[in-house]
Amino acid sequence: MTKNDLFTQFSRIVDKERIYTDSSDCWAYGYDNSRRHGLAEWVIFPLTHEEIRDIIRICNQARIPIVPRGRGTGTTGATVPTLGGVVLSLERMNTIYKIDPANRFMVVAPGVTNQEVQTAAGKYSFFWPPDPTSAAFCSVGGNLAYNSAGPKAVKYGTPRENVLGLRAITGAGEEIRCGVYTTKGVVGYDLTRLIIGSEGTLAIITEATLKLTPRPDVTQILRAAYKDPESAGEAVAAIMSQPIIPSALEFMDHQAIILAQGQGGVNLPSGAGALLMIEVEGTNISLNDNIEKVKKAAKNAGTIEIIAAQSDEEAKKLWAARKALSPALRTLAPKKINEDVVVPVSSLAIFIRKLENLAQEFSIKIVNFGHAGNGNIHVNLLVNPDNPIEMERAKSCLDQIFSIVLQLNGTLSGEHGVGLEKRDFISREIDLVTLGVMRRIKDQFDPNGILNPEKKLPLIEK
Amino acid sequence: MTKNDLFTQFSRIVDKERIYTDSSDCWAYGYDNSRRHGLAEWVIFPLTHEEIRDIIRICNQARIPIVPRGRGTGTTGATVPTLGGVVLSLERMNTIYKIDPANRFMVVAPGVTNQEVQTAAGKYSFFWPPDPTSAAFCSVGGNLAYNSAGPKAVKYGTPRENVLGLRAITGAGEEIRCGVYTTKGVVGYDLTRLIIGSEGTLAIITEATLKLTPRPDVTQILRAAYKDPESAGEAVAAIMSQPIIPSALEFMDHQAIILAQGQGGVNLPSGAGALLMIEVEGTNISLNDNIEKVKKAAKNAGTIEIIAAQSDEEAKKLWAARKALSPALRTLAPKKINEDVVVPVSSLAIFIRKLENLAQEFSIKIVNFGHAGNGNIHVNLLVNPDNPIEMERAKSCLDQIFSIVLQLNGTLSGEHGVGLEKRDFISREIDLVTLGVMRRIKDQFDPNGILNPEKKLPLIEK
Repeated sequence: MTKNDLFTQFSRIVDKERIYTDSSDCWAYGYDNSRRHGLAEWVIFPLTHEEIRDIIRICNQARIPIVPRGRGTGTTGATVPTLGGVVLSLERMNTIYKIDPANRFMVVAPGVTNQEVQTAAGKYSFFWPPDPTSAAFCSVGGNLAYNSAGPKAVKYGTPRENVLGLRAITGAGEEIRCGVYTTKGVVGYDLTRLIIGSEGTLAIITEATLKLTPRPDVTQILRAAYKDPESAGEAVAAIMSQPIIPSALEFMDHQAIILAQGQGGVNLPSGAGALLMIEVEGTNISLNDNIEKVKKAAKNAGTIEIIAAQSDEEAKKLWAARKALSPALRTLAPKKINEDVVVPVSSLAIFIRKLENLAQEFSIKIVNFGHAGNGNIHVNLLVNPDNPIEMERAKSCLDQIFSIVLQLNGTLSGEHGVGLEKRDFISREIDLVTLGVMRRIKDQFDPNGILNPEKKLPLIEK
Repeated sequence: MTKNDLFTQFSRIVDKERIYTDSSDCWAYGYDNSRRHGLAEWVIFPLTHEEIRDIIRICNQARIPIVPRGRGTGTTGATVPTLGGVVLSLERMNTIYKIDPANRFMVVAPGVTNQEVQTAAGKYSFFWPPDPTSAAFCSVGGNLAYNSAGPKAVKYGTPRENVLGLRAITGAGEEIRCGVYTTKGVVGYDLTRLIIGSEGTLAIITEATLKLTPRPDVTQILRAAYKDPESAGEAVAAIMSQPIIPSALEFMDHQAIILAQGQGGVNLPSGAGALLMIEVEGTNISLNDNIEKVKKAAKNAGTIEIIAAQSDEEAKKLWAARKALSPALRTLAPKKINEDVVVPVSSLAIFIRKLENLAQEFSIKIVNFGHAGNGNIHVNLLVNPDNPIEMERAKSCLDQIFSIVLQLNGTLSGEHGVGLEKRDFISREIDLVTLGVMRRIKDQFDPNGILNPEKKLPLIEK
């Protein structure tokens, strides 16, 4: 089929204004937050389930790759159209179809932003727990594609625990509907969670039923400083073993503390080798007791101080240390490598120590912070990608980091996903037989391999 | 292959004492709690992952059906060997492989009972949330196969939310490992949750990593009586909309109250048309406030009284009303039909009213109770299966119940599963295209259809 024929076909489905073909127009839809770029031949902006279905059917017939895209905030290249073809930009599908507060769910189109969900849910005193850093801008469809979470996952789980059902189109153009509108349901196989986290390689989500959670009455922030990562790790395990699970339990290592310290207005205790930021929820009456319970668990021989914010102003100051990190890192190393590994919480300190050794061995500055309650650590290698020798060292260092993570019974990604960045490492974590089953499942959804090809699973050697 | 040849092959894998072939021995492994029965040609008791693998491989080669079985407490016939073949009884695989309190997980063999898990976890002040009524006896493998839950699901979710990873063998004899040892992980497709709830039709679970939850400090029971189901339904929606989510929120309708009333020692207020049993968790200090918050949500114009248990003794008395139900029902109708449907909580009262109408229309006594917070109602049709005319009426009545559930955006099963009982109704809930995808997924796991054949999915017309 010629490009003209295809254009004719696509334009029967969507208005011509919603089809980009000019490379200058397509350019901006070729990258995400991974610094990778690919140039699509088409960027198409569907508005409905049916339009997506018909576009996929054409692409399937013509064997054209199709890459679904939310807002391009991913960090793994999963939305980069490396093989050209169609980028299906879902950003204009931003309708909230239904809010049902009595049944605590919301039905949304994939292009609705996380923030729009929170705002709409907030009117009824609900929220949707997944809260990636990019929440103000990223789309729900993207959150679901990656199973993206954030600090609140420690208490409330990831999208897999916060989605009731989906409507989607497979790579063969089949319309499927899975899941339920209730918080229980065991009819059929669980395709909902299979599609969540599949990075657009199985089906394109056209509608999601999100489970909403009642907002807590009040929250308070604790900042706990420790002399070393061992003491912080011990505190994390103790906090997670008692019933007042915090709604955030964030970790910063020594290097991260030094960085944060350098920012204005942040006042951290001297000698702190590790820091925890802990958010505790409660009612006006129970909060103090909840805080005391968490403080007790957080306290051990290596605790330097535990400060509770007494006001919103103070809470902001405490969070400032954590929030100061990203700008500080960007200033220091605009093109840093930001990893997203997970280790069991009891291995947090061992992991941090091993990272310190690797930093020395490879002469690379490594800064670590992340979601300690889940053992999800963002390992930041402050390298200059324009320096090939340093990048070679970084590559070897990353390789060893992944080996350590797997030795510790961890996993290579907690919330950023695989995309292109980690595709070639996956077979270290998942054995070939299990990968074989995954590939066969992929084939059932997408027999011609048009949906986000060459992402998520390792390439098959030809 | 002759039966003798097969015996030789099986006996190379497991000791002869662990192979039953005599029909009198096999008989007791032919039924579950559905009153259905089938006679297996073989009952085999594996002890290890490898034994299961090798048995499946033989069955796959010889095209012999293989039905995995925990303790046979299911209610849908899912473990009944309707086509003969092998019943793989996992009851002797009852080893707890590992308890890791610091990382809040436990690795168990499929034959470990739910109670054994609770006891082992309890030593470290943890519990595993799924709590079906048969918890004292049922196996974890069975809980996972059905995604069985119980009262605590309202706060803590079902097995899908409480399992981190699995080891399993597909119907082709492939050994797979999926999931992680951490509370986050997005590498590969989510096979863990796909296998959970698949009723042994995709793979046989040989090892499960269970996510443990810290036990609450204290709990208290509230019993709230309402003049009608509408008021109770309103209360359920209000309770679930505030942040103190109860750890149980059970419902009893008017008929259930009358039944419970008839039991000794149960003292219910007169005029109660619906009852809620509410369990609230907290610390010694926060509990009272939590109770007040839930009470406030539970109170509306139709509330007759809300009683809080002031002691363990009183709590027992309050639960007595709920617990008295099952024996009372068994006395009344030993062969009752016990359904397990789910409706959105805002439709609870409408549903109960429609059931009252159906009871009149079909002259069948219907008693309803269940997990109100999830909208999961056990609809009990008190019929005599030995009376064919009554059974015919019951069949028509059930048919209408299912239609109502689906009209209300509910689902046909919340926790009991499909098995044989609901297999022929599934295509009313799941469309044919989606069912087609499910069937193709089944084929990837079990190409020769030996794993629990003719269960879970509708039969394909030939």
